[in-house]
Order: sequence, then structure tokens, then C-alpha cells
Amino acid sequence: MKKYYFEKLDTSKIDELCKRSAINFDKVIPITKSILENVKINGDKALKEYGLKFDKVSLDNFLVSKNEIENACNNVPSETKNAFLIAKKNIEKFHKSQVKKEQIIETMSGVTCFRESRAIEKVGLYVPGGTAPLPSTVLMLGIPAKIAGCEEVIMCTPPNIDGKIPEIILFTAYLVGIKKIYKVGGAQAIAAMAYGTKTISKVYKIFGPGNQYVTCAKMLVSTDGIAIDMPAGPSEVLIIADKNANASFVAADLLSQAEHGVDSQAVLVCTDENKTDEVLKEIDVQIVKLPRYKIAKESIDKSFSVICKNLDEAISFSNSYAPEHLILNIKKSDKYLEKIKNAGSVFIGQYSCESAGDYASGTNHTLPTYGYAKAFSGVSTNSFIKQVTFQKLNADGVKNIGKTVMKMAEIEGLTAHKNAMEIRFNAIKN
Amino acid sequence: MKKYYFEKLDTSKIDELCKRSAINFDKVIPITKSILENVKINGDKALKEYGLKFDKVSLDNFLVSKNEIENACNNVPSETKNAFLIAKKNIEKFHKSQVKKEQIIETMSGVTCFRESRAIEKVGLYVPGGTAPLPSTVLMLGIPAKIAGCEEVIMCTPPNIDGKIPEIILFTAYLVGIKKIYKVGGAQAIAAMAYGTKTISKVYKIFGPGNQYVTCAKMLVSTDGIAIDMPAGPSEVLIIADKNANASFVAADLLSQAEHGVDSQAVLVCTDENKTDEVLKEIDVQIVKLPRYKIAKESIDKSFSVICKNLDEAISFSNSYAPEHLILNIKKSDKYLEKIKNAGSVFIGQYSCESAGDYASGTNHTLPTYGYAKAFSGVSTNSFIKQVTFQKLNADGVKNIGKTVMKMAEIEGLTAHKNAMEIRFNAIKN
Repeated sequence: MKKYYFEKLDTSKIDELCKRSAINFDKVIPITKSILENVKINGDKALKEYGLKFDKVSLDNFLVSKNEIENACNNVPSETKNAFLIAKKNIEKFHKSQVKKEQIIETMSGVTCFRESRAIEKVGLYVPGGTAPLPSTVLMLGIPAKIAGCEEVIMCTPPNIDGKIPEIILFTAYLVGIKKIYKVGGAQAIAAMAYGTKTISKVYKIFGPGNQYVTCAKMLVSTDGIAIDMPAGPSEVLIIADKNANASFVAADLLSQAEHGVDSQAVLVCTDENKTDEVLKEIDVQIVKLPRYKIAKESIDKSFSVICKNLDEAISFSNSYAPEHLILNIKKSDKYLEKIKNAGSVFIGQYSCESAGDYASGTNHTLPTYGYAKAFSGVSTNSFIKQVTFQKLNADGVKNIGKTVMKMAEIEGLTAHKNAMEIRFNAIKN
Repeated sequence: MKKYYFEKLDTSKIDELCKRSAINFDKVIPITKSILENVKINGDKALKEYGLKFDKVSLDNFLVSKNEIENACNNVPSETKNAFLIAKKNIEKFHKSQVKKEQIIETMSGVTCFRESRAIEKVGLYVPGGTAPLPSTVLMLGIPAKIAGCEEVIMCTPPNIDGKIPEIILFTAYLVGIKKIYKVGGAQAIAAMAYGTKTISKVYKIFGPGNQYVTCAKMLVSTDGIAIDMPAGPSEVLIIADKNANASFVAADLLSQAEHGVDSQAVLVCTDENKTDEVLKEIDVQIVKLPRYKIAKESIDKSFSVICKNLDEAISFSNSYAPEHLILNIKKSDKYLEKIKNAGSVFIGQYSCESAGDYASGTNHTLPTYGYAKAFSGVSTNSFIKQVTFQKLNADGVKNIGKTVMKMAEIEGLTAHKNAMEIRFNAIKN
């Protein structure tokens, strides 16, 4: 982990440090495009073909059966069930607080405006496969979808070589009330949800993480007007620590990020050089014990630390970096919250480890990476709704607003716009 | 305007009617890509080059001077100023109500979660040029940007052949507090705001309407991670009318949509066939008087009406169509609001013409077209902010949530995630 001194960094060096490693889609785009095109044209036939090619299994039926779900629910150990139930409760509690009834505003006498939430009717959730299942993703996407009231919530996830989905995934989906689970993975799953096939119906918005093909497919379907949760990049954490921080805690947090993947960034911004060194030593102690040592090592080696003179410098750097996860392992951390401008999710104080938020604190773990926190929010219940605006004018409203509207329409050269108001204005006068 | 009977429409015919005319970007994409690339590499030099090519004017300085703004403010007639001031007040009042402080949620004892709004620091607004100026766009984008608290709000708009910006645009920008206005239009303006040039600084999110090159440029920069307001298509209205509707009002509203452009759709969904015929006749009367007759005629000819047996059918069709603007010119219109699932903005009752919302009722006129209302909201103050989540665990929180987090990390095979919690859990126990 390379060390930098904030005072020695000029703007261009800060920009360079804040730049994430480039994602090169050049090779991925043509492959993904051909998958999208094939699924668009050939539907289920294409899905079957890719299932055989990528998942090494030939399926005639992609839909997970009721029986499979029941078995999963029976087989998951109760201790595990309990953990997921507690997480669900917390996530539900926080996400329920996110959509509120809004007030009716009378902008002028006789003119009222208001907004109402409407669930996105059909949403698709993607849950990646891989070496270990990711049931937490099911909670983080399924819970807000259900709270929002989405009528159709479908899920795609790749099967293993036996054509099965991990039982913990099925149990979690059952827990949050997702009934349509399809054994389809990769870019072809995104294509199926975006364009629809005979088996999988088209949705209006697609959520969820995935490999570069999935990410690329989401990006491509979004240019076709299918909404997606947000653009994606490798996961990352930035930890601001002061001299009081427990170095073992900080090291553990950096490593919990680093184990995600070799492109994950774990950035330490510390107001104390001795503490920085202490953390780096502690990383060396902890890292060797990790099963995912190789991944974590490569990621840590690519990451960096910045030594700052004070917390203002540290927060300024963090705002430039716009981390997905920001941990404040500092004294009186609450005092600094209002200075944070760009971050996905913030973990306040020494006891708030990222893994708490990844799983069970209640916040969502689907967050903007890659600096996107400068313009994007993480997934919330709001991600599953639209806000529709309403307005109502009565006769008084027409009298009060009429001339304003007519004047403005006149200036924009839109005579029919003017007429639509004038015809009412005159009708009321008479 | 072709007439359909809802009872005779099967699902595939409804789908066909709800499909907007395809936007073919095939020719536009390569041109737009080369503009983006050129601006990315050559910055201001490229902007100057395109200014000469497209706007027929060679500018050495793109920034509108203080002098130009002052002159504009002096020259705009007071009656016009007054109209814009009233509109501003209404829009401000409604948009101020849209961002709220959220409560702190204790998901379990010792674990608190909350969200806070943070303005997107840098935003860019695009205001198209053309035959008539569009100062209402300045209000609709500038007001929420300022309410949100965006630190840097810049605006790009094409100059006329004399290198000038319409005075009403400059006055409106002054009114809402936009100070940096650049005489740059088209795809090159989007490129400049997305990637930055020496004169125009890079922003994090780009808003505003435009021609197909602007739309395409926004789509392309969005795949580079620059946020955009929403995907765009031609403007449209759907009017639900019953036998009580004033046919002149309905015709005027359809025409106010049709005059926008030849691809604009004006859809009439009526529960009474006689009323439909009355409206169509009234269109013939009103349309001939319009300065934009040709445009309106072509648009109306391409549009259609649907005759329904009752309002439930009418609303069902509207929900499938997902109109940008939905006018409810029906008795007891309030009763039907909760049945509306997909729409950008809804105009309730006979006096609520679309032009009221286009200009001054208080709602935003930047709305999802092309069926995007199924998944997207219109622009609001929320479009200019991010929601950052925060969580804080104290020692009690670690005790209460610790085992849950460790169990879930274990299941996902993420040992370092488990460690980060375990190290704290054990520290508290001792």
C-alpha cells in the first residue's frame, strides 16, 4: 500500500489518485451485444443455448419449482434462518421509512400541486452466482421492491452445473416474497428481463450486481430505455482514521473490502503517520490468515494511504474520491457528518464496520462505486417507485395564472399552448 | 386521427398503439461519437470549430458577459418579467416542498440508520435554441438546482448567427441565479459539460432537452458514468374525456401538444363516441388558425383516439401507454387518481390545461416521454441531490447484531467481512 502526504499532492495528483482503474469494455461490448441480439430474436432458445455454453447445463424449464423452494426452506439450518430473519427485519424497518406521503401545495389561489408515489409495476433482480452464493443481495433488492409495492418482482440467477440454485438463495427469495425465480445468468439474463422471452416477462427496471458482461448488458439495455439501478464498478472503501483508532479494526475493515476482488480499492486516510504504519503492520498480520489471501493481497497492494494534517484535509480528500463506503473511525465522528458531500454509505465511529451495513444494519448495500457517488444515490425504496406530479386548477386558478401562462406561451412562439389557456380564461369570464 | 374501439383491441394491438415511433439513432450515433471524441481531445478548439460549422458564428469567448446579462435584464419588458416572476414563485414553492429531513431509525438497540440529502455539486443545464427561445426550460431546471443547493450550476445554449443569446433566456437565467452561461449548443455542449474543457468545467449530471444529437450525446456520455436527467423522446399528451367534457378545451389541449413537433403524439381516450367526433371537428376548426399549422397537422394525422365503454377501460389504456402528460377532463376526476399507475404529470379536471404545467402551475415540465413514465419520474428537486445513508453502531449494537453479521458473512464465504465484526465483538466482550 503506497503512502502519500496530502500536503504534497497537487490537484492533478489528487485527481489521479481518485481515478479508479479503467474498466475496458472494448472486448466485452461485441460479445454482450451479440448475446442481447440473440435473446431478443430467439428468446428462450437462446437462453438454453447460453445456459449450456456458460453454466454447462441444459435446462428445459428455467423457472424454479415450488418443490425446490420448499426443500430449500426445509434444509436451511435454523441458525442461518434466524440470521436472515433479523437482517430482514432491520432492512425492512429502515426501508419502510423511506417513502412518505407528500403534502398538497397551493402554489397560488386555485392552483394546487402535489406528488404521489407509484410503484414500478415490473422489476427484475439479478443475483450473481460464483464460488459462494450472495443471499444478502436478495434481501437488499427484494425487500425494497416489496415495500414499494411492485406488482411483479422476478429474479434471475445462474444455476450450478447440476441445474440447481443454492438453497440459501431460494430460502431468502421465499423470505422476501419473490415467487418467480429463473435459472438464467449472465448477460442473457439481463437481455431476457429487458426484452422479454416466452418464459421471462419484460420488466421496466433491472437491479443487481454482476460480472463485466452483466454490467455491460445493463449499460447497453439502458440506452434502449430500460431503467437500471445505477452504473457499476468494483467495490471500494475509504476509511478516515485518527490517532485514537484501533489499528486492528481499521486493518480488518480494509481487508474486508480487499477480499472482494483484485480491483477493489481499500483507501486509508489518516491524520497520524504512526497510526498509518500500525494499520499497515496489522494488515500484514491479518491478511495471511484469510482464505481469500491472494485476492486481498493483490487488492491491498494496489490500494493506497494518504496522510493528512487534520480531519478537514481528510474529508476534503474523501469528497474528491467519493467512496462507495466511508468509515469514520475518529473521535467525535458525528461532528463531521455535515462536511461529507460525496459517499454512498457512511459508517460512523469505531464500532460501525462496513460488514454491518453489507448485511444487516438496515441500510442498503447496493451503492454507487467508481466515484458515481458524486451524482448517484444507493438503492432505496425510492429506486422502486416513480413520483407522479399532479396539478389541479379551478376557475379561480385559471383567473390567477391565466395571463402568466399566455404571456410565456407567446414568448416561446407556441400559439396553441396559449389558446388552451385562453379558451378557458375566456369561458370563465363570460 | 384514426379511431379505435377499446373492446376490439387485443393485447398485441394495444401494445402496438402504445409503441411510439421508433427513434433511429443509426445515422446520429457515429456523428455524435466523433463530436464527443473531438471535444474530449481538443476542448475549446473543437467547440469553436463546431460553433462555426453549426451555429455559423466564430466565438473566441463562449461565456456570456455580465454586460450582456445586464442589458438583457434592462431590455425585457416589465409585463414579460412579471409573468416569469410569477411562474418562478410557483415553481419554487412546489419544488421547495420536495426535499425533506428524514428521521433517524433505530433498527435494533444500538444500531441507528438515517439518510441525508446532499446536493450534486456540479450540474450542467442544456437549453436548446431554435426558432423561438425556451426560457421556461431555464426555470424548470435552474430553480430546483438552486433549491437543492448545487454549488456550480452552468448552462449551455447555442448562440444565434450574431453570437448572441436571446435576452429572455439571459433574463431568466439571471432570475434563477445562474451566472455561468456558455454560448455552446448541440452535442458539443453535452461533450463539454461531460468531459470538461479549459473554459467549461466538467459536471456530474446533465439536464435538459434537445435535438437528436443532444439526446444521443446525453445517452452516450451516460454510458461513461455521467448522470443524465432521463432518456428522452418526442413530447406527448393523452387526454381522458367523458361526455361532459368541453370539446373546445379538449381540442385545444390536443393541439397544444401537436404543435411541438411532427413526432408529438396527441391521444384522445374518450368514453363517448359523439364527444370524440365533436372534438375531432373542433380540431379542424382550431388547427387552421395556428401559425404552426403544418407541424400540428402532421402530428394530429399520426395520432389516434380510443373509444372506451367506461373510465376503467380508459385508465387501463392510459396506464399501458404511460403518457408524459395525462389530462383528466372528466367529472369527479379526483376519484380516479389512485388508479393512475404510469404518467409523468397529471392534469386534473377541465380547467387544468397542460400549458399551465408547462409554464407556471409549479410542477416541473421535464417529464418522462416515450413510455419511460413506467420507470422514471420527472425532474424534481430530488434530481439534483443524492441521498447518502448513514449508520452508527455502538457497543450494544455490536452485541445485538454481531452474530447475525458473522453468520451471513460466513455463508457468503467472506471471512474478512466476518473478521471485521468478530474483532469488535470480541473486544466488547472482554
